[in-house]
Amino acid sequence: IESDNSVQLEHILEELHFADVAEIIDELNLEQAVYIVKLLDSEKTSEALMELDEDQRDRVLNALSPKEIADELEEMDTDDAADILNELPDNIAQEVISELIDEQHAEDIVDLLRYEENSAGGLMAKELVKVNENWTVTGCVSEMRAQAENVTRVHSIYVVDNNDKLKGRLSLKDLLTSPASTPIKDVCKPKVDYVTVKTSGEEVSRIMRKYDLEAIPVVDELDRLVGRVTIDDIVDFITEEAEKDYQLASGISQDVEANDSIWDLTKARLPWLVLGLVGGIGAAAIMGGFEHLIKEYAVLFLFTPLIAAMAGNVGVQSSAIIVQGIANDDLKGSIGNRLLKEILLAMLNGVILAILLFAYTFFAEGEFLTSLAISISLFAVIIVAGLVGTFVPLALHKRGIDPALATGPFITTSNDIFGILIYFLIAKAIIGI
Amino acid sequence: IESDNSVQLEHILEELHFADVAEIIDELNLEQAVYIVKLLDSEKTSEALMELDEDQRDRVLNALSPKEIADELEEMDTDDAADILNELPDNIAQEVISELIDEQHAEDIVDLLRYEENSAGGLMAKELVKVNENWTVTGCVSEMRAQAENVTRVHSIYVVDNNDKLKGRLSLKDLLTSPASTPIKDVCKPKVDYVTVKTSGEEVSRIMRKYDLEAIPVVDELDRLVGRVTIDDIVDFITEEAEKDYQLASGISQDVEANDSIWDLTKARLPWLVLGLVGGIGAAAIMGGFEHLIKEYAVLFLFTPLIAAMAGNVGVQSSAIIVQGIANDDLKGSIGNRLLKEILLAMLNGVILAILLFAYTFFAEGEFLTSLAISISLFAVIIVAGLVGTFVPLALHKRGIDPALATGPFITTSNDIFGILIYFLIAKAIIGI
Repeated sequence: IESDNSVQLEHILEELHFADVAEIIDELNLEQAVYIVKLLDSEKTSEALMELDEDQRDRVLNALSPKEIADELEEMDTDDAADILNELPDNIAQEVISELIDEQHAEDIVDLLRYEENSAGGLMAKELVKVNENWTVTGCVSEMRAQAENVTRVHSIYVVDNNDKLKGRLSLKDLLTSPASTPIKDVCKPKVDYVTVKTSGEEVSRIMRKYDLEAIPVVDELDRLVGRVTIDDIVDFITEEAEKDYQLASGISQDVEANDSIWDLTKARLPWLVLGLVGGIGAAAIMGGFEHLIKEYAVLFLFTPLIAAMAGNVGVQSSAIIVQGIANDDLKGSIGNRLLKEILLAMLNGVILAILLFAYTFFAEGEFLTSLAISISLFAVIIVAGLVGTFVPLALHKRGIDPALATGPFITTSNDIFGILIYFLIAKAIIGI
Repeated sequence: IESDNSVQLEHILEELHFADVAEIIDELNLEQAVYIVKLLDSEKTSEALMELDEDQRDRVLNALSPKEIADELEEMDTDDAADILNELPDNIAQEVISELIDEQHAEDIVDLLRYEENSAGGLMAKELVKVNENWTVTGCVSEMRAQAENVTRVHSIYVVDNNDKLKGRLSLKDLLTSPASTPIKDVCKPKVDYVTVKTSGEEVSRIMRKYDLEAIPVVDELDRLVGRVTIDDIVDFITEEAEKDYQLASGISQDVEANDSIWDLTKARLPWLVLGLVGGIGAAAIMGGFEHLIKEYAVLFLFTPLIAAMAGNVGVQSSAIIVQGIANDDLKGSIGNRLLKEILLAMLNGVILAILLFAYTFFAEGEFLTSLAISISLFAVIIVAGLVGTFVPLALHKRGIDPALATGPFITTSNDIFGILIYFLIAKAIIGI
């Protein structure tokens, strides 16, 4: 297909949905991909570009001139265009902006670049349909028609006053069933959910999910309507956040996938493994401090992997529940109450597990005191691990750090060390060495 | 507020959005919650019920009579009503169904009960706007108006033939700008994305995300249009799936949250901890088999927690990447290629980590052969752990089992045992005992 007939190829691809074109481009090598992007008109390719795998998109964009990139951006929604510019090196982005022909479009895009990526400002698009509360229904309809040309999907019509302040919302139905000379003020629904440009992405997605919204207007510090966030962007946002949390919990720095190069995967995985290695060396050093016991109480050393594993598991469990509670904003009660609840929970789990372990060690080894020491240590380790797992994400969140960082290898590693230290201290006290 | 003035309370609550009413009900005790549900009219409470925390909803429903539940269901969309019925015990559900007054509504709900929860059939609602391809534009508009009454948001108008087979889609704009006598056949867009009732929820959400759809029609085995899935249901679906995967990876059985009772949390957490306990006992038993070495080579035993931790970390990392790749359906290449790539990756990581460990142990302990044995074992353990982490989720997925089960405690526990066994075997061979 690739080698010869460009006219025929163009025909085939023009028929396809842009998301399918994007899938095809993802599979091609760079030269072929750039060839196709240049071949098709920018209306199709601009949408396809947005659907591409990020790495492939970077490569394709690098191969295009600033003028060619600007042509693509002209066809994009402002929010997508701003995302692309954010990915480009600063000097190239500057050149691309100066190549934009549509002044208003360029202004809107530059406007969006000001906002943080993870805020309503960074997620919103400038494209929306708004009408002035002082217009009449007739004036409104013709003005709307012009505005709607730039907007792919009209979710809501927003009503503003002379200062562009958001006043309410208008339903198409009310508009069509009202007499032509009615002022918009009298038709408009004054109650409308909105967010400000600074609202975090998590909060926007929570509000939209709670009220089942498909779009939400965004206002600036002066309550002026500046954009809207649509549900498809929120779906992407939710998916990305979930993947990021999942990867952090699994000890992978964000933004890699199975098909990335071995080098990229190593960069994402190795740092966490080095952390684990350092933790393991720390554990070995602690055990080394008790090495004089090894001849008489060898059995204590046999259970160190068990203690470390249980400390890690409990820590991951309790931190995961806290991280999800924070993400869903449904944690009730104070930190003190949380910790108290976790202590009770850990005590319940700890007692059951300690009894099981005691039963095994006592029957297998037959030494009452050693078995007792091992089981009681396990009980203590589980409580401490649960507390650490609960406290660390809460503390990180209070300091404005992503609590998901505290899950996975971080909590397992620190709990390994803690766990083994507590284990030997308690065992020593009980056996009375 | 609660104790006295029911009229005033009703006024306040009627003004609120149903999602806010739901939040209030979530905070109340059962008696108060039921009181409010009975106080407000079912139009408001039916929507609020859907937004309630699941446990609270179960309790409230238990306190209502079948007739009262039926009243709520009358006001609900068919998909929500079916979800509620699925949560009720069979005999109560049966009674509720027989109390439904609107025959068509009841039929639609019962229809939906047939489908699996995690399929397009289980996610879809019956509410949609459909027109016959043989109608004219005029006939169509009046018919649509009647249908639209039952549909909260009209995303698309679907076109069917005389046998109810899906033929295409109609845009409101085309409908309004076409001459009144045009047959629908000539206005309708024949290309429309659709799914069948059997399509999995994951697949539906992938398609809707790919094409940025806000609703997708669902057809049955005979291509007849039977429902549609809307984006708000998909947002809930994605969120739930992500939470489930996250919890499985953290060793928590699904569907608990931080505010659940200690007993519920124990039920979700204890089984995985018992698994970890059994794994730890297994590891201790293996080490016990090498106990005769403990006097001469005590240092070997000091590093067992490190080996176990690294095996666990590598296993979790590689399984997480595979689980995400499967979820996004973007794994390329065969299982063989995957495993080969993981071997190369693990070798790269393994060499770096083994060199670091050798440097530490050699300088700390000064014994060349022991240090070499420990580092080479680490290298081998990392490769095996990576292979297990890659292979197990792929194998589970091939057998139709949720690969997320293979992450978290399952993979850490099995890798602990494997890792320690490999470690001692290799160490033994190198030291030549």
